[in-house]
Amino acid sequence: MSKIIDFQTDPSKYRHWRVEYDGEVANLIMDVDEAGGLFEGYELKLNSYDLGVDIELADVVQRMRFEHPEVKVVVMQSGKEKVFCAGANIRMLGGASHAHKVNFCKFTNETRNTFEAAEEDSGQKYIAAVKGACAGGGYELALACNYIILTNDSTSSVALPEVPLLAVLPGTGGLTRVTDKRKVRRDLADVFCSVEEGVRGQRAVDWRLVDEIAPNSKFDQVVQERAREFAAQSKKTVTQKGIELAPLNRSIGEDGSISYGSVEVAIERDNGRATITLKGPEAAAPGTIDELLAQSAGSYLLQLARELDDAILHLRLNEREIGLVIFRSQGDPEKIVEHEAMLLANRDNWLANEILLYWKRVLKRVDMTSRSLVALVEHGSCFSGVLAELLWAVDRSYMMLEEFEGDNRPMATVTLTDGNFGTYPMGNDLTRLQTRFLGVPDTVGELQAKIGTALEADEAEELGLITYAFDDIDWEDEVRIFLEERASFSPDAMTGMEANLRFAGPETMETRIFGRLTAWQNWIFQRPNAVGPDGALQRYGSGVRGKYDMERV
Amino acid sequence: MSKIIDFQTDPSKYRHWRVEYDGEVANLIMDVDEAGGLFEGYELKLNSYDLGVDIELADVVQRMRFEHPEVKVVVMQSGKEKVFCAGANIRMLGGASHAHKVNFCKFTNETRNTFEAAEEDSGQKYIAAVKGACAGGGYELALACNYIILTNDSTSSVALPEVPLLAVLPGTGGLTRVTDKRKVRRDLADVFCSVEEGVRGQRAVDWRLVDEIAPNSKFDQVVQERAREFAAQSKKTVTQKGIELAPLNRSIGEDGSISYGSVEVAIERDNGRATITLKGPEAAAPGTIDELLAQSAGSYLLQLARELDDAILHLRLNEREIGLVIFRSQGDPEKIVEHEAMLLANRDNWLANEILLYWKRVLKRVDMTSRSLVALVEHGSCFSGVLAELLWAVDRSYMMLEEFEGDNRPMATVTLTDGNFGTYPMGNDLTRLQTRFLGVPDTVGELQAKIGTALEADEAEELGLITYAFDDIDWEDEVRIFLEERASFSPDAMTGMEANLRFAGPETMETRIFGRLTAWQNWIFQRPNAVGPDGALQRYGSGVRGKYDMERV
Repeated sequence: MSKIIDFQTDPSKYRHWRVEYDGEVANLIMDVDEAGGLFEGYELKLNSYDLGVDIELADVVQRMRFEHPEVKVVVMQSGKEKVFCAGANIRMLGGASHAHKVNFCKFTNETRNTFEAAEEDSGQKYIAAVKGACAGGGYELALACNYIILTNDSTSSVALPEVPLLAVLPGTGGLTRVTDKRKVRRDLADVFCSVEEGVRGQRAVDWRLVDEIAPNSKFDQVVQERAREFAAQSKKTVTQKGIELAPLNRSIGEDGSISYGSVEVAIERDNGRATITLKGPEAAAPGTIDELLAQSAGSYLLQLARELDDAILHLRLNEREIGLVIFRSQGDPEKIVEHEAMLLANRDNWLANEILLYWKRVLKRVDMTSRSLVALVEHGSCFSGVLAELLWAVDRSYMMLEEFEGDNRPMATVTLTDGNFGTYPMGNDLTRLQTRFLGVPDTVGELQAKIGTALEADEAEELGLITYAFDDIDWEDEVRIFLEERASFSPDAMTGMEANLRFAGPETMETRIFGRLTAWQNWIFQRPNAVGPDGALQRYGSGVRGKYDMERV
Repeated sequence: MSKIIDFQTDPSKYRHWRVEYDGEVANLIMDVDEAGGLFEGYELKLNSYDLGVDIELADVVQRMRFEHPEVKVVVMQSGKEKVFCAGANIRMLGGASHAHKVNFCKFTNETRNTFEAAEEDSGQKYIAAVKGACAGGGYELALACNYIILTNDSTSSVALPEVPLLAVLPGTGGLTRVTDKRKVRRDLADVFCSVEEGVRGQRAVDWRLVDEIAPNSKFDQVVQERAREFAAQSKKTVTQKGIELAPLNRSIGEDGSISYGSVEVAIERDNGRATITLKGPEAAAPGTIDELLAQSAGSYLLQLARELDDAILHLRLNEREIGLVIFRSQGDPEKIVEHEAMLLANRDNWLANEILLYWKRVLKRVDMTSRSLVALVEHGSCFSGVLAELLWAVDRSYMMLEEFEGDNRPMATVTLTDGNFGTYPMGNDLTRLQTRFLGVPDTVGELQAKIGTALEADEAEELGLITYAFDDIDWEDEVRIFLEERASFSPDAMTGMEANLRFAGPETMETRIFGRLTAWQNWIFQRPNAVGPDGALQRYGSGVRGKYDMERV
């Protein structure tokens, strides 16, 4: 699997999904093209999916927010006769490298979290209309919807057959959503996760696995009725059309470097490093909402978010030996503050709100990126407001202190804004500053007094906003030593350490999915009982059960 | 590593620890016998530890509660000159099987949780007096203490060098306690976990890694002063001597079965099953505290807890191909209620309180046991009060419904008591009933109205207290089919599934240690970068760094 995976797509290229817009309701139809797998060697039968199918879904969900703000209910359903969705394609999983499996699951989890949160964030409620078999990753798709209607016939059921059939977990949020979202009684959950054929009819309602069943003959009618009801209950008032998410302006160099409009990614494969440089805005912030709407996908903060998001996903899947990602910025910090302030002041406008919500998601994507992350706050940089969040998303930050010989860029500063105090919560539902100062929570309040002040390195260090400040004499050596040291550590130990250190404080369903559930699944993805030559994933479809080492650990 | 590991010990057998009692203060001295390793092939240098060392520590902690209730402060310190503790022995880890490593870590974690909770539970505060190197598992020992004093000299430091040195995590709670107990700022935590030499002096205080530093010359004096201060602040009023935890009456049969006084463990290795039968009390509950004190370790509920605890630990470490543990009970359910009621009514007495607290720990040990657990509620059984907790600790329960032909034992019942509503919280700080009924929380309140009623199978099923009720016709087949089915699943998938389904609801530091941290560590314990022939654990001490695959996952 060495071809470059592209996360950019648009409806004209979809092979697996289509959307029928019907005013406030969008019917989202999964109709996977069997021959449309991202890689060779498997067919996407029975609406099973691979990363390519999920890239399209992520695109649908994103466009729903920006291009179709009039939509209040999205009905996820199948375009196939007898199956809703059979889950992740097993042959794809059986053939994929460990790293691909893990990153595939992470991306699908992020997409599910996104449409699950769309109801609360944007007033777009996803409901699953389940007709036919809905198994494994298929039921996990439904679980991430906020309402599930199941047709009541003898063949339609919901199921998590991973454990008995494949010796792996329902790891795309399945176990966590069963216990913590659907709140299924744990012994019933145990039974449910042990029966290949799943649960159907009234029992599925009684066990809290679905919200409603409807007779086959009336299924479509009930689904559309329910969709209209939910739409009518929605508090969302947007009726106008959205903006178009035009294709990104992106070019990939022969050495792997990438240029976007406001983001540059430099790749040093020999050193295992990528440097992401964010360029500040040239233009002033839009003065009015009309101007923002007119700028459309070209508005600075929206474009930057899209470019950064794409760059992160590209690095995750396509540059797997890059263990270290360095964030730099160059530009006018005051202009960033103005662009963000314009959005914050207009949160009652749907587009301003969506751009801020998108930054919340992009920053979470950074938090969840399993690479060592470092920020270099150099002279001429613009880590203010939303971009300052990166300083607390990374594992460490280094900041230039005082003047550097021959460097006449403006002195490095960090500027806090209102946005840093609640607009971009992490997966644990705390702000990055709250998480950072868990031990000295009063600090967060004290920092609010600094909003709008351009803080130079000594003050930023004093306030705990950066890790280290170094002057001209020490800067180069200190940064070099850190980068070299980091590259010498075991990538696996880094992954485990970062996954623990980054998410202090309370846990949420989201952090549990990426923490407990994912970590156990990754462990299982290493175990011969699942992935060995006689393991269940390899033997799937052969009619012979996996051969298991019966030792418990 | 096939010899039987015995979790029973007593001070006369200790090789690694000694305790000097000094009124309200106990000085607990770690002085590991290099030649005293549990297995061949390694020397326990520099106060490093293996499971044998930890079994003694667990025994110390347990006896401190029961035999020395007068102790208010325990000072953990080293008997060696220049080292506090170097952590888990690396050669032992390098040579141990995956299953041994995982179970070793689990047991050490349970012991640390126990002495960490002793302050709140029993008014026994553990403080760490750190002189000399305190690294890895050594610092994790200190982290589980509730106060850390570090001597301020040029060679004494605290460190978590696992990541740079061994390519594994500080997995015995280290990362979690750094972020969630000590609340170290995450970038400083990142630095701390990356430097082999650790952090010393004032910086260790500034970074919240220790509570206090003291000059070398005054160290012992400061430590003892602090111990006296904490003892004076303690609200604990117990002054009398404790009871003796006499050796368990235990015999192990040739087939692996075990007989205790009130617990029988039958082993069926061919079927991968163990059956634990708990026998109800013969005698009436003690009428007075004096009688309870006089019964000492022979009092029914204390003895039962000790026997069950030992049985669980034995199965975990010594019977690793037993994937399924079946809980049965036989006895008078009313008598269990009376024994428990006596303790509940006398919680202001230290011994009654300690027995209940011990049950809390034993039941948590059951929750954390990585085996499929099932309870069979048969006629003649006594699942009431504290024993009924087992019905909600297991993955599923089956109960006999109505009369069985030729069976004249009393009808199977379940009886709730006050104890089920707060006395034995799980690691998530909820009761097992609260966790079970997360989706219908009102149920817990409704169940309180049933306290004291012996509920037969139909009612117990109706109330959701058991999974299935089967009558004489179906019982045998249904139970057999379940047991056979369970034994056919991959043990790894079971481990992962159970670790997710058992702990719904809120997370605590404890659940994070056993969930997120442990799962990532187990994953790393499977990765060649750590455990492969060229991995860091194998190469440790060779002077050659581990050879790493640099791919990130």
